[in-house]
Amino acid sequence: MKHFKTEDFTLESGSEISDINIAYQVFGDFSPSKKVVWVCHALTANSDVEDWWNGLFGENDLFNSDKYTIVCANILGSCYGTSFKSEEKLPLISIRDMIEMHQKLADFLNISSIDFLIGGSLGGMQALEWAVTNPDFISNLTVIATNAKHSPWGIAFNEAQRMALNSGENGIEAARAIALLSYRNYETFDKTQEDNEEKLENFRAATYQKYQGEKLRKRFTKESYWILSKSMDSNNLGRNRISIENALSKITAKTLVIGIESDILFPISEQEYLAKNIKNSKLEIIKSLYGHDGFLLETKQILTVLKNYFIELKVED
Amino acid sequence: MKHFKTEDFTLESGSEISDINIAYQVFGDFSPSKKVVWVCHALTANSDVEDWWNGLFGENDLFNSDKYTIVCANILGSCYGTSFKSEEKLPLISIRDMIEMHQKLADFLNISSIDFLIGGSLGGMQALEWAVTNPDFISNLTVIATNAKHSPWGIAFNEAQRMALNSGENGIEAARAIALLSYRNYETFDKTQEDNEEKLENFRAATYQKYQGEKLRKRFTKESYWILSKSMDSNNLGRNRISIENALSKITAKTLVIGIESDILFPISEQEYLAKNIKNSKLEIIKSLYGHDGFLLETKQILTVLKNYFIELKVED
Repeated sequence: MKHFKTEDFTLESGSEISDINIAYQVFGDFSPSKKVVWVCHALTANSDVEDWWNGLFGENDLFNSDKYTIVCANILGSCYGTSFKSEEKLPLISIRDMIEMHQKLADFLNISSIDFLIGGSLGGMQALEWAVTNPDFISNLTVIATNAKHSPWGIAFNEAQRMALNSGENGIEAARAIALLSYRNYETFDKTQEDNEEKLENFRAATYQKYQGEKLRKRFTKESYWILSKSMDSNNLGRNRISIENALSKITAKTLVIGIESDILFPISEQEYLAKNIKNSKLEIIKSLYGHDGFLLETKQILTVLKNYFIELKVED
Repeated sequence: MKHFKTEDFTLESGSEISDINIAYQVFGDFSPSKKVVWVCHALTANSDVEDWWNGLFGENDLFNSDKYTIVCANILGSCYGTSFKSEEKLPLISIRDMIEMHQKLADFLNISSIDFLIGGSLGGMQALEWAVTNPDFISNLTVIATNAKHSPWGIAFNEAQRMALNSGENGIEAARAIALLSYRNYETFDKTQEDNEEKLENFRAATYQKYQGEKLRKRFTKESYWILSKSMDSNNLGRNRISIENALSKITAKTLVIGIESDILFPISEQEYLAKNIKNSKLEIIKSLYGHDGFLLETKQILTVLKNYFIELKVED
């Protein structure tokens, strides 16, 4: 893991942060013959894309470091090596702030353009923002299960999580359990957490929720969880840009939008909206038992969609 | 409000409770010429059915106390006047325990049979249980947005709420915000809590969640919320009855099952399952922007369905 340091930064909210230290990883060498792939990670992930997105990123995968130079930076607000100082305990970090920081890092790395920019969920929000704000910088854009403006439904889910975080020390466990409900759906729990014993309590679905809560508490901080949930809420490509449609019309990258049929958090309607309003775009829908989490789990399907898309675009993969 | 007292009671779990005091209300006099309507209330409601189900129950409504004798008892575990002593701080109260208590009260009131038994959600669970356990006692049964066995999805929602309750003093506020997500859906929040201002935070959907959380904290106890959420989880008509299908086949009441198309907590598939497995049953689906909460809010549609059903059955309404 490498670190990129920068002194001062004014957030979109107007607040100042300082002593910023961005953790990032580069997989593969920089070379004029190699295409640059930039990955924007989601809420609780990190710069180690070969870990959390294996099947797409790794030695034997489509995006491997022999063929590509792959960059992934831990986002501003996250707790995996990225840090900063702030007057405010929990400053509001917008998606635009994250992209301004990604751009600073890209400039520092002497990247003149990104051949493939890819992200799902909160990562998709960043990728869209970058393609809107600096269209010439991005040649190909792939976004999965994301949106142009976060929905009232998504904000309500996030607020319930922040209310849980505020309740006390282990609130992050409840917050994760809430999030999991939005990442999955009725079918997921029905097919994977059904009890057939005749009992009165200690059901599998309940045990699973507690397990997932504890697991996150051990690897994440409540401060980062709070900040990034507010970042997600703030997502609105149209803010101070006349309209969302106007913002999306700025994107010149060849764009692939992938939606997951069973996603209740970022429903297909949001993916259709993106594809409809981005000029050079194509929409692909994949099926999954896992709802929104399909963006991490259905790597085989995503791979197939990406490979076909590359053939169509006559891109060497 | 009246009170029914009973000394000792052995719960389905084997635990003992004592000094039980059940708060209940009777609307209208008992008279041989009047039909008896019994209402089973849901999670955070109470015996005042004319308050929380007005539009169906009240002076000018279908179920009025001039024509019917209407009984509604605050359920065991709830905090609206019903109380008990227990060795365990939070005993497990099953739906069967609630019905055993309702039956004791019905016997005390010299009710020889119930002409109309009606309930939605947790109230529907009770109504189904009563019709299974004492079929001859119930002539007509109407259940709305409920199930025969609580789903892993429903249990996961409840566990997230209990994790929030456990987090600290105001955990009940987060619990209510979580519940609200399951009572509504994407469309509900989209149509009622959209922001059009270009802001970075303090979105309407978040404010709404906080408001609903505070509102419940002021009127409910965390102990009751915990107990009743476990009661809901325990719902399984098939427990120790060979199978759910076998249990449902015991019901002899003429049964109307009402489902709400947009209900994500008690989806239509669960209503179809009930109607399919209850002999003299009819299924009606209503539409609502409000998802599961439609069972409380769509009284006009429920009224229309009930009136048509009464005509079909040649019941005087």
